[in-house]
Amino acid sequence: MGVRDLGLPERLTPDPGLPDRVTIWEVGPRDGLQNESATVPVEVKLEFLDRLASAGLTTLETTSFVHPKWVPQLADAEDLLATLTRRDGVRYPVLVPNARGLDRAVDAGVTDIAVFASATESFARKNLNSTFDDQFAMFDPVVTRARDEGMAVRGYLSMCFGDPWEGAVAPDQVVAAGKRLLDAGCWQLSLGDTIGVATPGQVDRLVDAFAAEGVDVGALAVHFHDTYGQALSNTLAALRRGITTVDSSAGGLGGCPYAESATGNLATEDLVWMLDGLGIAHGADLDALVDTSVWMAGRLGKPSPSRVVAALSG
Amino acid sequence: MGVRDLGLPERLTPDPGLPDRVTIWEVGPRDGLQNESATVPVEVKLEFLDRLASAGLTTLETTSFVHPKWVPQLADAEDLLATLTRRDGVRYPVLVPNARGLDRAVDAGVTDIAVFASATESFARKNLNSTFDDQFAMFDPVVTRARDEGMAVRGYLSMCFGDPWEGAVAPDQVVAAGKRLLDAGCWQLSLGDTIGVATPGQVDRLVDAFAAEGVDVGALAVHFHDTYGQALSNTLAALRRGITTVDSSAGGLGGCPYAESATGNLATEDLVWMLDGLGIAHGADLDALVDTSVWMAGRLGKPSPSRVVAALSG
Repeated sequence: MGVRDLGLPERLTPDPGLPDRVTIWEVGPRDGLQNESATVPVEVKLEFLDRLASAGLTTLETTSFVHPKWVPQLADAEDLLATLTRRDGVRYPVLVPNARGLDRAVDAGVTDIAVFASATESFARKNLNSTFDDQFAMFDPVVTRARDEGMAVRGYLSMCFGDPWEGAVAPDQVVAAGKRLLDAGCWQLSLGDTIGVATPGQVDRLVDAFAAEGVDVGALAVHFHDTYGQALSNTLAALRRGITTVDSSAGGLGGCPYAESATGNLATEDLVWMLDGLGIAHGADLDALVDTSVWMAGRLGKPSPSRVVAALSG
Repeated sequence: MGVRDLGLPERLTPDPGLPDRVTIWEVGPRDGLQNESATVPVEVKLEFLDRLASAGLTTLETTSFVHPKWVPQLADAEDLLATLTRRDGVRYPVLVPNARGLDRAVDAGVTDIAVFASATESFARKNLNSTFDDQFAMFDPVVTRARDEGMAVRGYLSMCFGDPWEGAVAPDQVVAAGKRLLDAGCWQLSLGDTIGVATPGQVDRLVDAFAAEGVDVGALAVHFHDTYGQALSNTLAALRRGITTVDSSAGGLGGCPYAESATGNLATEDLVWMLDGLGIAHGADLDALVDTSVWMAGRLGKPSPSRVVAALSG
């Protein structure tokens, strides 16, 4: 008998201070695979997406139109999207960095995209070859045109809690950058702890800072990396502040490009364990997710860093 | 430049809903090493204890008087205690299972002991070869005699949230067992999630259940395992409920004897990262702890499962 057969984690009735339901924004196929050193064949990606949808996830960030020179792992984006069987009730957003990426998204028939900006000057320069201010001049017309095309546009903001060249990041600066993305027309803003250094008090402070500037907390999502083991505590803090969309990656796929560790995104399974225990609905099946991550670990030739996957597949 | 040189994690001023100070009850030398497959020489244990004290930890659970047949890793308890140089301001508690263990503790000049009981019938039978009720008949005279000897006695309670044979554990049962240990004369009760299955709502519920039965929350400590990645979220919940003593193990030393995974105790470094970020005082030096865990990983011939150790030593 394993712990799952015994009904663990115990499912409590939801705490009134927490949401009843959370949307898991699964980023494994995109943010996960783009940060793995191995490149996975398109057939494996298609099976991965199919398995994740079968496991009950309803938002699958599918691939990226960043230039293949920068992300060779996702160079097959057009191929993948041409072959993908889309399921009813599942969203398949794609990352788009610029006008050229948007052209590719339009050609591929994509209806859901995400753009990304940096909360810091240093990362804007390193990742976008731009300045903090100029990045918005680049994104604004992309978001406008995407919306004219009828697309839903999500905004990612990187380095919202700490930056590997600047250290701590001031909440005012993050709020200013985030509002630019929302004002440009993004329907949701995902606050990224790109290097995984945040702690729960920072999450409280940042969400409060957005609320104080009139931003609807319902428009915010969180994107934590588990580099320093803090991702799930930070998620708990975010849920207590009213956040209802949480980014995670099946099996914790994806390294952390600007940190010393191989630990990447919050693992979807570790998130689901906590949500199940808290009685928060999310629609995903934990055992199916673990099976999928064990299968993908086999394709990648390395074990999943997810604690839950390790425990249930050991 | 690493993130530590940049002042990360950012230290916030303490949240009024959290304690200003936490006592880290370091269990690596005992709970950690007793669950590692390799047996470490007494000289290495002495250096480990010395390094942990130098890193600022003030409670070091040192060894165990469980019969060496059951815990061969700690068969050198007398040797270790005879050689150990005790520092002012540091406590060196020792685990004692029964009257024979107490004899050994008295002979070794130990002043601080811990006894352990099970919150469930199944684990009492498996771990103690007793019944749930009979275990207290065994402990009561041990605690009484230890106190007559002038010792401080801590009580550990295992399987407080889930049991590998019974599944979820009812809070009433845990409270009843915990009160027996406190009533017997234990000054502190450490609530153990021995198989790491707990989620934060269970922590809230259990602490509330103790408080409802008149137990001072200040007499409670928490002991989480990170088997399913929940240890730090559970700790955050416990801190919000007023708990101020947290058990952890340097480098996350120690497997989980009754779970499928190798991930053991909450890593002291992962805890310290969060406490530092929350502005909660604890007295330990993170970099010295990481150095110690890297050194110990070399002695054990396996990497530390702590996310912080992996990130800062990668």
